Amino acid sequence: MRRSVKSDNHCLDDGRALRTGIPEVVFAPSKSARALIVSVKGLARRHDVLITKCNEGQFALLRKEFGKKIMVADDECGGIVVEGAGAPLEPIDATVAVISAGSSDRYVAEEATLSLEYLGLKALRLYDRGVAGIHRTKNAMNECEKARVAAVIAVAGMEGTLPSVIAGLLRLPVIAVPTSVGYGTGAGGLAAMSTMLNSCAPGVLVVNIDNGFGAAAAARKFLSSAINVL
Amino acid sequence: MRRSVKSDNHCLDDGRALRTGIPEVVFAPSKSARALIVSVKGLARRHDVLITKCNEGQFALLRKEFGKKIMVADDECGGIVVEGAGAPLEPIDATVAVISAGSSDRYVAEEATLSLEYLGLKALRLYDRGVAGIHRTKNAMNECEKARVAAVIAVAGMEGTLPSVIAGLLRLPVIAVPTSVGYGTGAGGLAAMSTMLNSCAPGVLVVNIDNGFGAAAAARKFLSSAINVL
Amino acid sequence: MRRSVKSDNHCLDDGRALRTGIPEVVFAPSKSARALIVSVKGLARRHDVLITKCNEGQFALLRKEFGKKIMVADDECGGIVVEGAGAPLEPIDATVAVISAGSSDRYVAEEATLSLEYLGLKALRLYDRGVAGIHRTKNAMNECEKARVAAVIAVAGMEGTLPSVIAGLLRLPVIAVPTSVGYGTGAGGLAAMSTMLNSCAPGVLVVNIDNGFGAAAAARKFLSSAINVL
Amino acid sequence: MRRSVKSDNHCLDDGRALRTGIPEVVFAPSKSARALIVSVKGLARRHDVLITKCNEGQFALLRKEFGKKIMVADDECGGIVVEGAGAPLEPIDATVAVISAGSSDRYVAEEATLSLEYLGLKALRLYDRGVAGIHRTKNAMNECEKARVAAVIAVAGMEGTLPSVIAGLLRLPVIAVPTSVGYGTGAGGLAAMSTMLNSCAPGVLVVNIDNGFGAAAAARKFLSSAINVL
Amino acid sequence: MRRSVKSDNHCLDDGRALRTGIPEVVFAPSKSARALIVSVKGLARRHDVLITKCNEGQFALLRKEFGKKIMVADDECGGIVVEGAGAPLEPIDATVAVISAGSSDRYVAEEATLSLEYLGLKALRLYDRGVAGIHRTKNAMNECEKARVAAVIAVAGMEGTLPSVIAGLLRLPVIAVPTSVGYGTGAGGLAAMSTMLNSCAPGVLVVNIDNGFGAAAAARKFLSSAINVL
Amino acid sequence: MRRSVKSDNHCLDDGRALRTGIPEVVFAPSKSARALIVSVKGLARRHDVLITKCNEGQFALLRKEFGKKIMVADDECGGIVVEGAGAPLEPIDATVAVISAGSSDRYVAEEATLSLEYLGLKALRLYDRGVAGIHRTKNAMNECEKARVAAVIAVAGMEGTLPSVIAGLLRLPVIAVPTSVGYGTGAGGLAAMSTMLNSCAPGVLVVNIDNGFGAAAAARKFLSSAINVL
Amino acid sequence: MRRSVKSDNHCLDDGRALRTGIPEVVFAPSKSARALIVSVKGLARRHDVLITKCNEGQFALLRKEFGKKIMVADDECGGIVVEGAGAPLEPIDATVAVISAGSSDRYVAEEATLSLEYLGLKALRLYDRGVAGIHRTKNAMNECEKARVAAVIAVAGMEGTLPSVIAGLLRLPVIAVPTSVGYGTGAGGLAAMSTMLNSCAPGVLVVNIDNGFGAAAAARKFLSSAINVL
Amino acid sequence: MRRSVKSDNHCLDDGRALRTGIPEVVFAPSKSARALIVSVKGLARRHDVLITKCNEGQFALLRKEFGKKIMVADDECGGIVVEGAGAPLEPIDATVAVISAGSSDRYVAEEATLSLEYLGLKALRLYDRGVAGIHRTKNAMNECEKARVAAVIAVAGMEGTLPSVIAGLLRLPVIAVPTSVGYGTGAGGLAAMSTMLNSCAPGVLVVNIDNGFGAAAAARKFLSSAINVL
Repeated sequence: MRRSVKSDNHCLDDGRALRTGIPEVVFAPSKSARALIVSVKGLARRHDVLITKCNEGQFALLRKEFGKKIMVADDECGGIVVEGAGAPLEPIDATVAVISAGSSDRYVAEEATLSLEYLGLKALRLYDRGVAGIHRTKNAMNECEKARVAAVIAVAGMEGTLPSVIAGLLRLPVIAVPTSVGYGTGAGGLAAMSTMLNSCAPGVLVVNIDNGFGAAAAARKFLSSAINVL
Repeated sequence: MRRSVKSDNHCLDDGRALRTGIPEVVFAPSKSARALIVSVKGLARRHDVLITKCNEGQFALLRKEFGKKIMVADDECGGIVVEGAGAPLEPIDATVAVISAGSSDRYVAEEATLSLEYLGLKALRLYDRGVAGIHRTKNAMNECEKARVAAVIAVAGMEGTLPSVIAGLLRLPVIAVPTSVGYGTGAGGLAAMSTMLNSCAPGVLVVNIDNGFGAAAAARKFLSSAINVL
Repeated sequence: MRRSVKSDNHCLDDGRALRTGIPEVVFAPSKSARALIVSVKGLARRHDVLITKCNEGQFALLRKEFGKKIMVADDECGGIVVEGAGAPLEPIDATVAVISAGSSDRYVAEEATLSLEYLGLKALRLYDRGVAGIHRTKNAMNECEKARVAAVIAVAGMEGTLPSVIAGLLRLPVIAVPTSVGYGTGAGGLAAMSTMLNSCAPGVLVVNIDNGFGAAAAARKFLSSAINVL
Repeated sequence: MRRSVKSDNHCLDDGRALRTGIPEVVFAPSKSARALIVSVKGLARRHDVLITKCNEGQFALLRKEFGKKIMVADDECGGIVVEGAGAPLEPIDATVAVISAGSSDRYVAEEATLSLEYLGLKALRLYDRGVAGIHRTKNAMNECEKARVAAVIAVAGMEGTLPSVIAGLLRLPVIAVPTSVGYGTGAGGLAAMSTMLNSCAPGVLVVNIDNGFGAAAAARKFLSSAINVL
Repeated sequence: MRRSVKSDNHCLDDGRALRTGIPEVVFAPSKSARALIVSVKGLARRHDVLITKCNEGQFALLRKEFGKKIMVADDECGGIVVEGAGAPLEPIDATVAVISAGSSDRYVAEEATLSLEYLGLKALRLYDRGVAGIHRTKNAMNECEKARVAAVIAVAGMEGTLPSVIAGLLRLPVIAVPTSVGYGTGAGGLAAMSTMLNSCAPGVLVVNIDNGFGAAAAARKFLSSAINVL
Repeated sequence: MRRSVKSDNHCLDDGRALRTGIPEVVFAPSKSARALIVSVKGLARRHDVLITKCNEGQFALLRKEFGKKIMVADDECGGIVVEGAGAPLEPIDATVAVISAGSSDRYVAEEATLSLEYLGLKALRLYDRGVAGIHRTKNAMNECEKARVAAVIAVAGMEGTLPSVIAGLLRLPVIAVPTSVGYGTGAGGLAAMSTMLNSCAPGVLVVNIDNGFGAAAAARKFLSSAINVL
Repeated sequence: MRRSVKSDNHCLDDGRALRTGIPEVVFAPSKSARALIVSVKGLARRHDVLITKCNEGQFALLRKEFGKKIMVADDECGGIVVEGAGAPLEPIDATVAVISAGSSDRYVAEEATLSLEYLGLKALRLYDRGVAGIHRTKNAMNECEKARVAAVIAVAGMEGTLPSVIAGLLRLPVIAVPTSVGYGTGAGGLAAMSTMLNSCAPGVLVVNIDNGFGAAAAARKFLSSAINVL
Repeated sequence: MRRSVKSDNHCLDDGRALRTGIPEVVFAPSKSARALIVSVKGLARRHDVLITKCNEGQFALLRKEFGKKIMVADDECGGIVVEGAGAPLEPIDATVAVISAGSSDRYVAEEATLSLEYLGLKALRLYDRGVAGIHRTKNAMNECEKARVAAVIAVAGMEGTLPSVIAGLLRLPVIAVPTSVGYGTGAGGLAAMSTMLNSCAPGVLVVNIDNGFGAAAAARKFLSSAINVL
């Protein structure tokens, strides 16, 4: 049997930032070492590159390869930013609050925070504000008003109640991120996700489990469009 | 082919109240007309009989059959009580609050209320107290304290957040009843149920979807045992 | 057995528009006739009232009860607006496009359209633009640009591909609404929903199956907040 | 890109014991080493601290950090108690039986036992009493009566039949804890859980899979409330 | 367009009794009137015909068509036997007990009973013996021993505990039939089925939900083979 | 509130036959009467129109509207063909066998047959050939060889074994169509579908449950492409 | 806090063989080293002991502890038999065939074989007979007839077709064991299990995924009962 | 207890290529070292042997055993071809395109490519063409036309949109392979699979998750049959 020759089939989408307003980022899981490096190098020709959900081996690999070009390496969320041709997007002068329920949700909350800053927004961290101690949730609301935040990213695992309560208490738009924190029937994040999708407080928007980057991208798209048309 | 003779195979468990503290009640769904009447008559020899989740046809049937013997016929919860040899249990001087989230949960909340009263407890109705308007939830807490309630039955469909919030706010034991109210991913009550099972506030106890009677029976068992041993 | 007296337990949340920016609306399914009328009357004291997902019987009931007070009665989406103390919210001068995949998704798309207008936004209908004929999707993109829309609500059943393709093609924020249209493994909308949650185009936001109103409420919250802080 | 400064975002809920009757405990899984130590130290200022579901590494870490302050370190259930400002709750003179089905369920049963004692209750261990040998179940019933227990925590994996049988045999309230013991269709505990939720014996209350602490907390809340109001 | 001619495509398997020991029976649901009559007539040329799970319309149709040829018409289980060329199988002098948990399971229990008799076995009805009143289960055990039954068919819905308890109490083989009786998480019979598959008492055998005929067929195959080889 | 004017938003994809090789057909379920008529009329301007899965009301509606223009009206599969500007595709001189397992699968098998003929292929019906009587399956294999069929569409509900057995017995490509025929764990067709996807005989291709048209369209695409390139 | 004293809570069910006809065996997974040894020693006082599903560490442990007392140590199925007070059951002169579909199913097939022999029956191994090569299945049928086997245990993963085909071909009773062999939608064995439960050939009996021991126990119970009553 | 003698029960199906047109290949997962070697050696007597989804240990084992006889060892897809008695099938002069969505889907895409070549077809690799950058998808379409490909194998994880878009754009038949790439609700490939099964573009055919070999085998069967009959 004769095999066909394998050309290098990577096909980066380097016009994505221009076309959709969000640059292509690198999703690390199930990437081979070689695919990871090739992708980052390719994108860096256009702009700084965000890599999400790296494991320890991938962290080491990227550190070795890019050394001083690493702008942020945040092992609390598995995120890395490698310096490229410059910031991918023009900054917007607006703040998004990242409110998380428990200390175990920090991994996802930090991915949202890092992504917001990578996408040119300011982030306000409000962690450990779950409804088991609802006075903490209320305090977070006050801090949001003081800081004149434009939107809330609400991060919660287990039963995922936090976004419903926030959306019932204040006027800000809420993007809900279920996390995979939990056990038993809550394992993997499906319980949190279905809570958020069925929220009795109208207007809660949901992204995939653990998808902190997606929540930040959506916030960027909304604010950028509002500036454009309002 | 020769068929075996069918003797009347009903086998009522009329010692159940004595043995377990909860009398046998009649679960109407999928009972034939004949089985329904036979069961009620059999149990009535021992005590008043509660029938739950009757449909309209079953209501008509029972009204026709038992006429003046009907003590309660509550079509808001599909429950009927037929007079029998007397109250099934000795009353306990304690109040259980039934707090529901939305007006669509009333069907289940009323089943809980009726069951509590049938089982010799007092019920305090606090409906429409969902967390979309959390001040209503708080008011309910105050009414619970004023009325010195012994336990809370929290009834909620959709995303089922109510019991978590209550359990994070006050010292009372909480029995959570998910309801089948909802649509999309919330249809059938599984979203509400998994929210309740994963509650971040510890100690929330859960019964099957729409099972208002089960919640009341559990409350009775706990209070009756406490009187016995404390 | 003695039953407790039932006071009328409806507990409307009439401060909700002020607190959260979205007025309380009436979700018709599983409401009894009486509960439906009481709710609408109560809310009408504050503002015009939106009722969603009415069936034919509920339509007839509302028509009989409110007659000339009915401002919109749209049986293509099961929505009715009853005149109350005035518009619930101040209008915003912005347009949201409602793009649907197939003609069977119209029921949900019209709920989104009606809700947008009820909440003081303008709506642009772009229906029948599924990716089976992707040139139609592209035309919709051009119409969005011409109309300077601020956001897209993308409605799709079956496999729910539409929002991913839109989000890969243009800069606007996308709120995805899966519909229950489909059969076999697609029945009930779960296939469409999981497609949307796993979109490879970043920033797609998802609401519950068939939840056209929720999508509109989220759009209103985002635009209203943007006006406030930008 | 400039990153925001990360302040230390831990936000302990140290008023929880007073407010809800159950102190905040530490759920070890997915906690980082640092988060674990910070949480324990913070809570210890208020009261002795219970940490549940520790893995071996976390055991070692806690032993090293707290040395002689460790009051209980029970690797049969992954639980540790670290000495703090004193017992979190006033003891109640009541006994709760912990009945388990098989020897593989011991991990969860011991979490329930440890939690009961931490919360000021007495525990009666009755293990290996599954219904495959129903005479053992019956003997357990007799021991419950002799010891005048106030409630039963029934722990079972596989098909989870034990709580139904107990609830059909005696007057005590039953809190059912499904465990993740099993394989095939029983893997993960869902089969046991659905058995318990559908129990034909009324009044069985269910907590999340493997949640021994939750069952103990619920028992404490019920008994404490009963003392208060009866 | 030209359509191909449709010949009559029914293709009965009339050698099945000889080949597998169980004759072909007619499963009524989703059969058209015509297909139903054609199938029954075709099989009647070989032997008496059993039709299972008929609805009311199908009952009427069969009564009209076959009149006096109907040997059994049992609307308690939707089963009919139409006289054909004779008994399909030689009788075996052995008794199988059909034990059911609740009165709502009677529909399926009667299908098992009728099928046993159609297949030349004797049936012993023991209904209403669920474990909520476990003394009734025990009595059933004694009756089994007295009647020297060869096997047990245990029929149960809701949480489906009955077969486990029986298999832990006596030496007889147990074929478990989950029923679709239940609601909430038990709706449709999956909870009962998974209970039975995970039984802690070894050797419980399971058939599909509501499949009373399948259980009877399996019992026949086992007994017939035993006579052959032992 | 002022509503936007609704233009008629139907947007037919009349270039689809040319672009993809398969014309747009009309999927009847959840279409309103008006949408159904508008769609059929629009497409008829281009070619004859196939409408699938009509219910009785839709059949009557179409008969009344199109009268003599109806070329085929097949209530055994809910399919109708309305005459339009001519055959949608050029015929191919090839035969596809439609083999079904049981008589209850006929509804879906006939949809496949009708669709094949509408798409210009010949169909060979081989029904009632399930593996419970495997000699019937074998006979079908022989008929396939005699008729020199180019591919097999294998239709089966319940446990869906038929396609695996066919693919293990002969060289023809097999497109498997699971049907929604069944009950208990087989209800809705998921059991049949997962059987087909996991077939141990390699190369079985699967379409959605009950999707007879999809199977025919795939066969047409394959044969048409083969003619083109081979 | 004071902890209660832990007595040794193992509670073996050593009368089980007498009561149910099947001795208690030891299920190794999730047993601690200590629990494993204690259980085996306890049961060995009564009879030889079967331990199933041991991992490598448990194998080593048992070898070290029981040395020459080990009668069988079969790492192809993770099973061990430790010598005790004698054979647990009187032998029956009957043969059960164990037919498996693929070579990956051997682990489970060997558990069935070992269990049959432990329970006093003869086993006939017929492996690698899946329907992808149906002539192999047929040959197995012939070998069954030659050996006069009393029953078939059919073991299959992936799509699990084997038991249906066997039951359609011969008169023997069939106990189906789904295995966890597979990937994608077949991973974990659920696809195989639902195939078996929905078998179109009547009378297929199913046990839990990978439960080779359960199948053997059921066969023993059936044969032992048949000897008793026939 | 006496154990039966184990003969070597491997039963290869070496006539499969002749009978079904596809040779038996070796599925490596869950094969023991010995079973793996025995299978490969047995099949090599007939033809070259393809082994799929090898892990690293199995790669090493096969390398050591077969050394120079290894024709291809492709660790990008876990596939190995061992030289045997010659090519298993006669080559066909036709090209199949393998189009993948993202770089993480390469593992499965390469299994499809290797399998196509093993089965005597030519493969055209078109990777990284997901719809997030739809111009890349379009370019792939053009390359397909230029190369006159006969069919498309479309490989995609996450939300699995790619095959729908391809099938809406061109006339070629599409075999869709969902991959297990993804996280949260997309983990394991079920989201991608249901997208593909519900495709609004008719005629998309689906194989099991990650089943690159199955897709190639189906393409071979279709093309080989077309040559035969057209």
